[in-house]
Amino acid sequence: MKEINIGLVGASGIVGLQFLKILEQRKHNVKNLYLFASKTSAGKKLSFKGKEYIIEELDENSFDREMDFVFFCASNDISAKYAPIAKEKGVIVIDNSSHFRLNKDVPLVVPEINSHLLKEHKGIVANPNCSTIQAVLVLAPINKIYGIKRVVISTYQAVSGAGKEGIQDLVNGYEKTSWQTGRIRDAFVDTEHEMNPINILTPRHHYELNTFGEYIAGNIIPYIGEILEDGYSEEELKIINETKKILELPDLKITATAVRVPVINGHSESINIELERSYQLNSLKRLLLSTNGIELVDTPTPLKSSGKDAIFVGRIRKDFSTNGVNLFSSSDNLRKGAALNGVQIMEALINMQTVENNQ
Amino acid sequence: MKEINIGLVGASGIVGLQFLKILEQRKHNVKNLYLFASKTSAGKKLSFKGKEYIIEELDENSFDREMDFVFFCASNDISAKYAPIAKEKGVIVIDNSSHFRLNKDVPLVVPEINSHLLKEHKGIVANPNCSTIQAVLVLAPINKIYGIKRVVISTYQAVSGAGKEGIQDLVNGYEKTSWQTGRIRDAFVDTEHEMNPINILTPRHHYELNTFGEYIAGNIIPYIGEILEDGYSEEELKIINETKKILELPDLKITATAVRVPVINGHSESINIELERSYQLNSLKRLLLSTNGIELVDTPTPLKSSGKDAIFVGRIRKDFSTNGVNLFSSSDNLRKGAALNGVQIMEALINMQTVENNQ
Repeated sequence: MKEINIGLVGASGIVGLQFLKILEQRKHNVKNLYLFASKTSAGKKLSFKGKEYIIEELDENSFDREMDFVFFCASNDISAKYAPIAKEKGVIVIDNSSHFRLNKDVPLVVPEINSHLLKEHKGIVANPNCSTIQAVLVLAPINKIYGIKRVVISTYQAVSGAGKEGIQDLVNGYEKTSWQTGRIRDAFVDTEHEMNPINILTPRHHYELNTFGEYIAGNIIPYIGEILEDGYSEEELKIINETKKILELPDLKITATAVRVPVINGHSESINIELERSYQLNSLKRLLLSTNGIELVDTPTPLKSSGKDAIFVGRIRKDFSTNGVNLFSSSDNLRKGAALNGVQIMEALINMQTVENNQ
Repeated sequence: MKEINIGLVGASGIVGLQFLKILEQRKHNVKNLYLFASKTSAGKKLSFKGKEYIIEELDENSFDREMDFVFFCASNDISAKYAPIAKEKGVIVIDNSSHFRLNKDVPLVVPEINSHLLKEHKGIVANPNCSTIQAVLVLAPINKIYGIKRVVISTYQAVSGAGKEGIQDLVNGYEKTSWQTGRIRDAFVDTEHEMNPINILTPRHHYELNTFGEYIAGNIIPYIGEILEDGYSEEELKIINETKKILELPDLKITATAVRVPVINGHSESINIELERSYQLNSLKRLLLSTNGIELVDTPTPLKSSGKDAIFVGRIRKDFSTNGVNLFSSSDNLRKGAALNGVQIMEALINMQTVENNQ
């Protein structure tokens, strides 16, 4: 395998760690690996293929090395400031932030769908939002064969999408409420209605609110990111706008509701699709079965998909209210939803270069 | 308040206990209270208004008492067998099972919407499915003013909907995974990617599967009830068919996806509604604000709604993909979704009798 030199910005974050894991799993021949993070994490060590690497503080000279690709998985601000610097130094940027995603000059790539756009990249390639990747992998083949008239998506998103702090918040909640489980058991034995278990676990958990602004343990939160002026949350607008760009359907009729659920890892989506052309359910299932990156199962769940590469799709059934289909998907939001897709973008770029060099 | 004599079948179940609680909270003047359950629970005691009542085993002579109303909150089989017997003895049956709901001769009642049907009852009144009640309270006023063209619902349903066993399953899962929280914390301090928290909590929890057939703690399960031949789960068909009956729109275009989430109590729904007539968002909000049984909040959650009477509705926003609206609701599935609605049916029947007697 071709020798490559890689930079990783945001190395100590939850997505950064997944990048390392996936580069290792996919046996990339990494000659030089440079890990960057904020001052707080600088000096810490991470291991990659059994070798230790020290995290450096990111600065303007970070890209003056032998570096072919740099993955950004830090904040939008970091990408906005440093991605152009890396690009200027000739390093190809694969950016997991949302900063460049809707930029006309930046391809937004899910390799199974639109790797052809990589030929025209100008130094920066954007990695889509986790929920978007999961949705478009299903929508793209269906649109190609049947034509999509309208899409309604409701999500069930894991706390790992909010980083380590999100996981910490959920785990805090579990710990703070665990003393109550004994009382619930008592309530099962003694059927006195004053001991009704519902009175015990609700309405409040009493632990510190951090990441989500609402209790997430034993609860769901019906928005992700800020709620903007027209009533949509940031996550919903990402799903809507990025899907339009990736499918190259600027007028696609699509709406979305993004919901956080008390799951550690693995996003799920309930997707309703109205189709332009009539269809046979079995043909549509076969289409998805033959689509790269999708695995069909009866009942996709976060636990089934977490740690796996494929988008798990199931509950595929006719929507009798229209010429449409209902389906449900679960996917590892840190892998295909983030790091894996980023690594696949790099792999597509390497293949492209190899093909060019051989011509 | 009028003196009433009440029977309660399934008294020791989670919905039965809520019936007692709500009858107490709403200060009903209960002269005689008869509690029934299966052999297993017979002999146990429940308290109501500070007095103890012994649960009796249900049999064919159970209704030979001074009894005005009997609530059934046991299985479909129990309702099928005993509701006709109670009715025969002149006791008005309010049935929480799904057995009679689609029966042409049985009114399916949400009092805020169709209490007029109670005038024509023939001894049995059906209490709708929890998710249906929550949906129709929003859909009925919107349909009246704007006309509904099509509805897409995705649910987020609590484990209490599966009774005490459902709660037990979730609590078991929490207990069996709680030892792992320490390891997750270690992973936050030590950023070694081998200690990535995602590796710890997934893919398996290792506890006994009971109620749900899949792990529910830290997971979601994308079906409720059996999955039938056309691919729909029983819960989804209840939502679809009962909504059509209650709204008196047999051809209503509606589809649904029912999902279990790791929440103790409180169902939520993401509802997308296409409207026949154009609308102003503020007018639609005012309409819901003035609807009995609905409380508007920015972000409805299970924790906010659990223990409350109202359906909490929020995230109301234009669906820009059509002439439609997106909204999100949370409601206590044991209260308005079951016991409260049943008690309200009884109250409407009592009011009706009072009005008749005064004429």
